[in-house]
Amino acid sequence: MDGPAQQDVPALMAEIGAAAREAAAELAYASAEAKRDALLAAADAVHDRRGQILEANAEDMAAAEGKGLTKAMLDRLALDPDRLAGIAEGLRSIAEQPDPVGRTLETWERPNGLKFRKVSTPLGVIGVIYESRPNVTADAGGLCLKSGNAVILRGGSESFHSSGALHAALVDGLRAASLPAAAIQRVPTTDRAAVGAMLAMPEHIDVLVPRGGKSLVGRVQAEARVPVFAHLEGICHVYVDAAADAGKARRVVLNAKTCRTGICGAAECLLIHEDVADTLGRDLVTDLLEAGVELRGDAAAQALDPRVTAATAEDWGREFLDMILAVRVVPSIDEAVAHVRRHGSGHTEAILTEDDAAAERFFARLDSAILLRNASTQFADGGEFGFGAEIGIATGKMHARGPVGAQHLTSFKYLVEGDGTIRP
Amino acid sequence: MDGPAQQDVPALMAEIGAAAREAAAELAYASAEAKRDALLAAADAVHDRRGQILEANAEDMAAAEGKGLTKAMLDRLALDPDRLAGIAEGLRSIAEQPDPVGRTLETWERPNGLKFRKVSTPLGVIGVIYESRPNVTADAGGLCLKSGNAVILRGGSESFHSSGALHAALVDGLRAASLPAAAIQRVPTTDRAAVGAMLAMPEHIDVLVPRGGKSLVGRVQAEARVPVFAHLEGICHVYVDAAADAGKARRVVLNAKTCRTGICGAAECLLIHEDVADTLGRDLVTDLLEAGVELRGDAAAQALDPRVTAATAEDWGREFLDMILAVRVVPSIDEAVAHVRRHGSGHTEAILTEDDAAAERFFARLDSAILLRNASTQFADGGEFGFGAEIGIATGKMHARGPVGAQHLTSFKYLVEGDGTIRP
Repeated sequence: MDGPAQQDVPALMAEIGAAAREAAAELAYASAEAKRDALLAAADAVHDRRGQILEANAEDMAAAEGKGLTKAMLDRLALDPDRLAGIAEGLRSIAEQPDPVGRTLETWERPNGLKFRKVSTPLGVIGVIYESRPNVTADAGGLCLKSGNAVILRGGSESFHSSGALHAALVDGLRAASLPAAAIQRVPTTDRAAVGAMLAMPEHIDVLVPRGGKSLVGRVQAEARVPVFAHLEGICHVYVDAAADAGKARRVVLNAKTCRTGICGAAECLLIHEDVADTLGRDLVTDLLEAGVELRGDAAAQALDPRVTAATAEDWGREFLDMILAVRVVPSIDEAVAHVRRHGSGHTEAILTEDDAAAERFFARLDSAILLRNASTQFADGGEFGFGAEIGIATGKMHARGPVGAQHLTSFKYLVEGDGTIRP
Repeated sequence: MDGPAQQDVPALMAEIGAAAREAAAELAYASAEAKRDALLAAADAVHDRRGQILEANAEDMAAAEGKGLTKAMLDRLALDPDRLAGIAEGLRSIAEQPDPVGRTLETWERPNGLKFRKVSTPLGVIGVIYESRPNVTADAGGLCLKSGNAVILRGGSESFHSSGALHAALVDGLRAASLPAAAIQRVPTTDRAAVGAMLAMPEHIDVLVPRGGKSLVGRVQAEARVPVFAHLEGICHVYVDAAADAGKARRVVLNAKTCRTGICGAAECLLIHEDVADTLGRDLVTDLLEAGVELRGDAAAQALDPRVTAATAEDWGREFLDMILAVRVVPSIDEAVAHVRRHGSGHTEAILTEDDAAAERFFARLDSAILLRNASTQFADGGEFGFGAEIGIATGKMHARGPVGAQHLTSFKYLVEGDGTIRP
């Protein structure tokens, strides 16, 4: 445990919360230039402080190795000059995006002469609770600043020193642009009571963004007293329709599963129309097995290749995050849709088809945040969507959905101009 | 207590909830024509069933008079042929609005050829909890149907029979268009346990809309496990700037307070810039007093007319909903903004000024859902905004804000088309 010992965590969090609320009020009307300048200055500060940041990261890595973290976890935690340059580049790319606040979203006029404008505004204070990846400090801090929101960052204990050093660079940026330092705050303790406090301070935090494993996200979703932008799981399905183009299907299915198996956009279940099971289906199964993917199928899928093992009931709707894929042969597109409704997580699904009517049916009858046609589920990512960066991916239907970029961390207000106009 | 006696309310609500969820899945891809047809047929059914509806209303009125309800409450409850024609007309006007579902909200393309469409979708199941006004049954039912959402209506016990008869007309409309009857359900009991059940069924209800007094809305906001679209109070401020046009100010201030004192958009506090207190301020005070408004002011406001009584601390930030207004003289626009931030409810505020910079400052530094310039706060209404009707007015910053019409009862999904596109 680092940070001040014996701390009164609830008091500390209340203080941080009040400072965030005050900073948010000021940030809400900060100029686009000031926010841009702060982000560019923060990127410079990441470069200037690189020695210090790498040193802090070495300290975290040494502690993590001592704790016996897995290789994948250590890799997520590690920083090097290249990754640091990437973090600075990320801040610059957020800086150069159009300002998401004060955008006119709609205008109209009424017969009585009233002129209406719907204009974007920040949400207020955003709480981000994440695990070991230190780059989230910079991404989340940068996106919240860009969108005029104050942010309270609570990173995992593994990346405590790295996040602290990156946070210092963000504060340098705020100071350089004369913006309140409390606009981006970091919880300066690894005491877990801080997480509990963040879940129960609706007077100071307007939205929570949890990033990490299912147990963290599940806890935040269950206990938070404010809206949560998150996904619990990414159980992505790929449906290969009877009218699929074989070349596209083979390319996309392999990519959707294997490009990166550990991300939420990785495919976890393949549904194959029975009309093409024996032909294209067999090729898909062979491709996947040869790429080293373990396949768990229903009887019809097992019939395609003896190496396909029997899927258990738990394999449907399961997020493997690994080189494992569930495979089922379905009699119709409607059965594929029903399967996704039953087992999906509302994250991302893809259809492979050359039939416009089939694609339209799939798009209309499913309601996942992201639906793709003839493209890999691995595109479920704010950067790939062109949002510059993402603070997370949301599967709820309220407010923000899919990859959440700076533009989605806003609300709106109505500005109405009259000329002494009264209601009859 | 009406409805089946000795009912197992939790079981009843679970059944209603499951039927709503199922209907919502079907309604989500119902055609615009079917929804329009259902609304027009429901309007016809309100006309055809008018005898029955008025009879049911007479039963409610007799019971209400027996309970000693106030005249205002009886007036809200009463139906007559004119009001019924208005309800039918309201349904027709919702029918004729553009369909809010399936609208393309944004399109863009990425360098890799992926084509993105952001398309509006329904939210799912909406729970509406309201008090005595039977017309909410038709307005809320109609708006939810238009936006492709299933709805569970829970009206007050006073309007139980009236709401039941109006609900039957809505179901006639659904049947005429072959849409699921469970798309618009009404809780068939006045047992208060039904409200508690609606607050605790996030698996069946996605959003709650409470309409009624502060205690109802407060309870729903405190206990609901899903997002709530509502306002607890409408504490609307009118600020008369140093650069106000006297004629516009006198017209708007009087209207903002007195047009209808019982609605959430009625002004509750007048702030006058000290530079114009002795001139325009005195005229405003005289106008209001002569119109029968009781004024409660600070010392400077009291100095304008001896009939202004001393405001207590509780009079700032108080929703009078009556012919009473708090009045304060402020030294600057910034002090007016600070007063609103301290005492406002985030609903609606107006500035009277001919100074563009002052209006801009007021618009930028306040974050109420609706901000008006030179126009009455009484325009805070979905009909006046041109939304056809409103299910309520929301003061939260998440998802829906201000008057909530059919278009605001939607979420979105991303539809992405590729050509066998894979992620590198």
